[in-house]
Amino acid sequence: MIDFGELFEQSIDDMLAAAFRDCLDDVDKGMSPADVDAAWFGTIDIADNASSGLGLSHPTGLFEMPVTRVENACATGSSAFRSAVESVRAGNTDVALVAGAEKMRDSAAGLIEGAALDQVWRGRGVTMPAFFGLRATRHMEEYGTTREQIAKISVKNHENGAKYPHAHYRFTCDVDDVVDSPQVTYPLNLYDCCPVTDGAAATLVVSEDVVDEFTDDPIWVAGSGLSVDSFERGNDESLVGFPATEQAAGQAYEQAGITADDIDVAEVHDCFTITELVTYEDLGFCEKGDGGAFIDSGEPLLDGETPVNPSGGLLAKGHPIGATGVAQVNEIYEQLRGKAGAVQADNDPEYGLQHNIGIGRNATGSVSCVNILSRQR
Amino acid sequence: MIDFGELFEQSIDDMLAAAFRDCLDDVDKGMSPADVDAAWFGTIDIADNASSGLGLSHPTGLFEMPVTRVENACATGSSAFRSAVESVRAGNTDVALVAGAEKMRDSAAGLIEGAALDQVWRGRGVTMPAFFGLRATRHMEEYGTTREQIAKISVKNHENGAKYPHAHYRFTCDVDDVVDSPQVTYPLNLYDCCPVTDGAAATLVVSEDVVDEFTDDPIWVAGSGLSVDSFERGNDESLVGFPATEQAAGQAYEQAGITADDIDVAEVHDCFTITELVTYEDLGFCEKGDGGAFIDSGEPLLDGETPVNPSGGLLAKGHPIGATGVAQVNEIYEQLRGKAGAVQADNDPEYGLQHNIGIGRNATGSVSCVNILSRQR
Repeated sequence: MIDFGELFEQSIDDMLAAAFRDCLDDVDKGMSPADVDAAWFGTIDIADNASSGLGLSHPTGLFEMPVTRVENACATGSSAFRSAVESVRAGNTDVALVAGAEKMRDSAAGLIEGAALDQVWRGRGVTMPAFFGLRATRHMEEYGTTREQIAKISVKNHENGAKYPHAHYRFTCDVDDVVDSPQVTYPLNLYDCCPVTDGAAATLVVSEDVVDEFTDDPIWVAGSGLSVDSFERGNDESLVGFPATEQAAGQAYEQAGITADDIDVAEVHDCFTITELVTYEDLGFCEKGDGGAFIDSGEPLLDGETPVNPSGGLLAKGHPIGATGVAQVNEIYEQLRGKAGAVQADNDPEYGLQHNIGIGRNATGSVSCVNILSRQR
Repeated sequence: MIDFGELFEQSIDDMLAAAFRDCLDDVDKGMSPADVDAAWFGTIDIADNASSGLGLSHPTGLFEMPVTRVENACATGSSAFRSAVESVRAGNTDVALVAGAEKMRDSAAGLIEGAALDQVWRGRGVTMPAFFGLRATRHMEEYGTTREQIAKISVKNHENGAKYPHAHYRFTCDVDDVVDSPQVTYPLNLYDCCPVTDGAAATLVVSEDVVDEFTDDPIWVAGSGLSVDSFERGNDESLVGFPATEQAAGQAYEQAGITADDIDVAEVHDCFTITELVTYEDLGFCEKGDGGAFIDSGEPLLDGETPVNPSGGLLAKGHPIGATGVAQVNEIYEQLRGKAGAVQADNDPEYGLQHNIGIGRNATGSVSCVNILSRQR
């Protein structure tokens, strides 16, 4: 991944070219563009770059091969990764590039305008912070979750992000800083929200038939899940979590033949602090309602039993939508190889999990993607 | 597929719900929504419906399963089909729904405005008709292709379309009608151009493990190819065809273990008459430069040796972008089963081919997808 941030001086092509170059440079035994057989491009194309697979081909020079654009709201990057995995599993592809990118800052005005103009959203007043804020107030009401517990997630992720070289924000804060930061929508304040960030990331999915050509230390895809659900179905009537995450995680655990207890490190979707808190529960890291106690216990801290968002998460690293899931996969890859540097989990991780939750269709539904990587074949 | 046309009275949800219902109703032994394991949604989302997989889930009721949106310019529908095939081949999915839809008429103004405002296009004057018109004049110059030969493709496709119950346009015309119709961009006139059409289509990809539950007369996916190429690479310096189509077809033929000679019926991308003419050559139905002679020979006529676009093609049927490739797959399915009614090829077809070519990234490149279906397993 490139360094995320406000990258006004870089086009989406610049960002993708850099992420692709860095990705190839990171391959242990080397890889050239000619080794790539097919590619998947994750972007919601928020800056309206007239996308399709060509949006990845031009900056990378990957032509005369299958290139497919995948879009799945905030689960776009992880869905693109999943599609590449399916192609490799199908025997159609030996070396698949997955790249995601988003120019968020150029388009923030358009994004806000688009949301504001939309009749469904306007009628409900449901901006993204308000949407997640409702989840927070309900969780506090139902389970006694405290404002301080929610704030601790921001403290943890900024603590990690301050050590993470590619993060957009690299500062630390304490609970008082979070609860005293400007209110965005009750109970979420500025430090409870991820920033608007530009970025790109790229990763490789390689078949077991040829992986030895590129590394002696591969990380394996153990499971992948994807699910959609709708708030209008009444399936999450309590509004304290996301059934789509439970469903996607269930698929991924089943495919991997493991349970939540086996996960040693995770990169999860913390677009807002409350999102990470309910995700602990939805992924099965703790019981429903115990997310507050889980952060209190220290288990998701970098030196805890199950570090969550060692990279600083979306809160510190930023959330360039198409790139986010791909960057999370990369971080899990580094963690399982023990090469995550200053944010390396010290629990010798065997299994790592990557998670996104997207809110789509004018906040009527959610889409979640969960990928599980493993040191073991 | 639903009846294509100017469907101002139908929302994209209405169209998708109808296509899904019709698709299930067409299954020989019956199928219920509960039988579907995963779904792929093809749309370029030209009407800005805030897509993602949720855009398909809501109108179909397909929740709690993987739903992925795929976009690949005018090859969007066929790319979505290809993605579903890869998932089934990977063993991840037994029953995959593929649905595509586009609300073109609501958005034509925005589309034209977007194109006009784009600096790259504006600088070049390259609207879509102008872009394809350049291919036509060059083909005429290089190979002596005549205006009448190009016009014959419109005559053929409207002849077929007049018999096709789902077509947007159901009239016949002769060569004089085409060359006398209002000029759009030399040498292409109004009847050389596909209309702006709303529509939706849905199809099913089912694994060999369970297909017996649904039909005793399945059609098999024999091969699938996808490729991107760029005009800026100089790879098609002669401007008389699309290397991406040659590449995608090459992949598909190789996977199917056949050559172009084995194809008995085809649905190809005739967004403009010239597009179909050069596609004859790019797919290998004839030598490069012989497209004019190929239509003169009558081979692609409905009663010819290799009927092309029995459905009337995009010229008559219309081109709701995300739906187009899916509708083409459906037509090949019907043709191979001998159930294509008034437009049934009378050559007892064994192999059928579906093709799209998309122009993306502000007309800097092309993306082509080719799927080959077969009566034989």
